[in-house]
Amino acid sequence: MGSGEGGEKKALGWAARDPSGVLSPYSYTLRSTGPDDVYIKVICCGICHTDIHQIKNDLGMSNYPMVPGHEVVGEVVEVGTDVSKFTVGDVVGVGVIVGCCGRCKPCSSDLEQYCNKRIWSYNDVYTDGKPTQGGFADTMIVNQKFVVKIPEGMPVEQAAPLLCAGVTVYSPLSHFGLMSSGLRGGILGLGGVGHMGVKIAKAMGHHVTVISSSERKREEAMDHLGADDYVVSSDQAEMQRIADSLDYIIDTVPVFHPLEPYLASLKLDGKLILMGVINTPLQFITPLVILGRKVISGSFIGSIKETEEVLAFCKEKGLTSTIEVVKIDELNTAFERLHKNDVRYRFVVDVAGSNLVEEAATTTTK
Amino acid sequence: MGSGEGGEKKALGWAARDPSGVLSPYSYTLRSTGPDDVYIKVICCGICHTDIHQIKNDLGMSNYPMVPGHEVVGEVVEVGTDVSKFTVGDVVGVGVIVGCCGRCKPCSSDLEQYCNKRIWSYNDVYTDGKPTQGGFADTMIVNQKFVVKIPEGMPVEQAAPLLCAGVTVYSPLSHFGLMSSGLRGGILGLGGVGHMGVKIAKAMGHHVTVISSSERKREEAMDHLGADDYVVSSDQAEMQRIADSLDYIIDTVPVFHPLEPYLASLKLDGKLILMGVINTPLQFITPLVILGRKVISGSFIGSIKETEEVLAFCKEKGLTSTIEVVKIDELNTAFERLHKNDVRYRFVVDVAGSNLVEEAATTTTK
Repeated sequence: MGSGEGGEKKALGWAARDPSGVLSPYSYTLRSTGPDDVYIKVICCGICHTDIHQIKNDLGMSNYPMVPGHEVVGEVVEVGTDVSKFTVGDVVGVGVIVGCCGRCKPCSSDLEQYCNKRIWSYNDVYTDGKPTQGGFADTMIVNQKFVVKIPEGMPVEQAAPLLCAGVTVYSPLSHFGLMSSGLRGGILGLGGVGHMGVKIAKAMGHHVTVISSSERKREEAMDHLGADDYVVSSDQAEMQRIADSLDYIIDTVPVFHPLEPYLASLKLDGKLILMGVINTPLQFITPLVILGRKVISGSFIGSIKETEEVLAFCKEKGLTSTIEVVKIDELNTAFERLHKNDVRYRFVVDVAGSNLVEEAATTTTK
Repeated sequence: MGSGEGGEKKALGWAARDPSGVLSPYSYTLRSTGPDDVYIKVICCGICHTDIHQIKNDLGMSNYPMVPGHEVVGEVVEVGTDVSKFTVGDVVGVGVIVGCCGRCKPCSSDLEQYCNKRIWSYNDVYTDGKPTQGGFADTMIVNQKFVVKIPEGMPVEQAAPLLCAGVTVYSPLSHFGLMSSGLRGGILGLGGVGHMGVKIAKAMGHHVTVISSSERKREEAMDHLGADDYVVSSDQAEMQRIADSLDYIIDTVPVFHPLEPYLASLKLDGKLILMGVINTPLQFITPLVILGRKVISGSFIGSIKETEEVLAFCKEKGLTSTIEVVKIDELNTAFERLHKNDVRYRFVVDVAGSNLVEEAATTTTK
C-alpha cells in the first residue's frame, strides 16, 4: 500500500479519460500523510448522479484522468501526527468536500459546503497543486476535518449513500426546522436522493406524499419505501386534493418543471426545497408565494457536522438505504444503468472486494 | 352621526362608480353596532397603490359603488356591549382586513391575514351580506378584533401609513428573524412601501442599500431617507460590488424583473422577500438559490398583532413616514399623481377636515 510515512503513496483507481466517460484502471500518486491527514483504504463507494455529469463533462469543467466517487467508506490505515479524531482501524466516511478556506463566514459557521473555496473530492485541485481523485480507488488521503466516523455496527455499504444522498436530504430538513414528528412532507422525484428523502422523512415521523410524473413507481413508493400517499403530478384532481396540505416538498427533479402546482400544495409557511441544479430558469407567479408566505429555497449537500448527525440518526432509527452492490468491473455498466434510472436506488461499489487491475493493459501511470 | 345603538347608521364616503375609478360622494348605511363592534369616526386615511387597482378593476374583481381606503385612523364614538379593548374617545386604526373565519390554522396562529376567508376592508362582502366600504368616509363599523389602538402622542396622519405600508415591511422582517441590529438590508424600489422599508430598517439598526432602476432617487434615498448605499440595478460593476453582501432584500417592484442580480447580492441564507403581486411569472436559475441556501419568499401585509407591534416600534423609535396630506376633494388628483409615482411617499387624506358633500349633486343613496 504505497510507501511509508513521509513519502508519496501510490494509488490505483478507475478513471475516466475523456468525455466518453468510460472508466478504466489508472494509477497515480497521493500526497504523503501530512500532520492533519488520514490515510484511508477504501472499502466501498456509492455512485451519485453527479458522477455522470462529471465523467461526461456535462458541466464543461472536467479534467482527465478523473477518478470519481464521493460516497466513500474506508478503514483508517495511517494517521498524521496531529490527528486526534481517528485511530488506525476506524471505519470512516468521506463525502463531497475535502477542503475549504477555514476563514470565511460559512467556514466559521460549520457550513463549509458553502465556502467559495471548497475543494471537491475529485475533479478539483488540492492545496498542494495535485488533482483530487475520488473513491473508486484503493486508497485516499483526506484531511481529518473532512472525515467522519461510521457508527459502530452500521454496514459499510449502507453508510455510503448517507455521505451524499442522505445528508443532502437531512441538511435542509434540519436547517429549515422540519424535523418534528407529524409534519406532512412531499418528495418530488424518486431517484437516489428522493428514495432517501422518503425513508428519512418517514423515520422523522412525517406523513410522506410522493409526487411523481407517472403511476410507474406507486407500488414501489407505497409498499417498499413506506410512503403514505402517491400523487401523479399531471392529475389535476389529485393535485387539488393535496392543495394547501404540505409543510415542505423536497424537489429532486433535475430538469425544468413548473413550480406553481407544487407551491399550491404547500400550506402557509410551507417550503419548496430545490435540490436539482438546473440551468434553465424555473418560474413562479408571486401571488402563490406572497399569499401563503411560502418559501422557495434550495440546499447543497450538508456540513460535516450534519453528516455525522445523519449517520447517528440512521443508526438510531435502523434506517437502511435500498442499494445494489456491484464490483468495480461493473462500474461502466452501472453508470449506463444509472443514466437510464435503472437502479433501485443507489449503486454501491464493493471496492475492497474487487480486483482493481483486471484490465491491466489499459493502466497508465502519471 | 346616524341613528342610535341598535339601528342602522348612515355613512357618507367617496366612492368609485365604475372602472374609470373617478370618486365622488356616496351615502350608504352601516350595520348597527353589534356586541363586538366599534363605531369609528374617521379622522384620516392613507392612499395605497392597491386602491388604484381596486377602483379601476385591474384585478377584475371590483364591485361598485366602492369606497376605498384601508389605512384608516379614527376616533371611537360607540362600542358594542362585548367590546373590552376600546372605549369611546380612543384613537384607533383599521387596516386591510376586517374579518376572518377564526377557526383555521392561520387564524388560530394570529396570522389572520392568511385566512382564506379573510374579509377585505372594502370591495368585499361582510358576514351580514352587505358590501364592505373603506376609510374615505365619515364613519366605519369594525369588529374590535380588527381594530388597533394608536399609541398616545403619535400624530394621526403619521399612524395611517403604518397600518398597511408599515406593517407590510415590518411583518417579514419580524417573521424571518431579520430584526437584529447590524444586518445588511436591500430595499428594491422606492415607493410607498419601499420608503417605509428604508426607515424601518434604519430604525432597526441595519445598513440599508437602496437598489433602484435609475440615479433619480439617489439624493432622496441617501440624504432624506438616510440610506447607507445606493445602487443602480443596471450598473453591473455596482451590482458586483454588493454581491454576496446582503442579509435580505425587500423587493417592492410591482412588475416583471429578473431575480438573478438580486439573488447574487444576497449572502449565504439571505432572503429575497417579494411584496409585489405580479401575474407575469418571475424566473431564477436554481444554482443561485441552492449554492447559498438562499430563500425566495414573500409576505402579505401583517397580522393585527404585528400592526400593534409596528405602531409601538415606530413610537419608540420616533419614526415618521414621509407623507403629503390632502383634502378629500383632492382625492381624484391624488390618485392620478400616485399612478404616476408623483408623491413623496404617501398621500394621507384629512377626512375629518374635509367637506365630504361639496359635490352633493352626484350623491346617491343605496
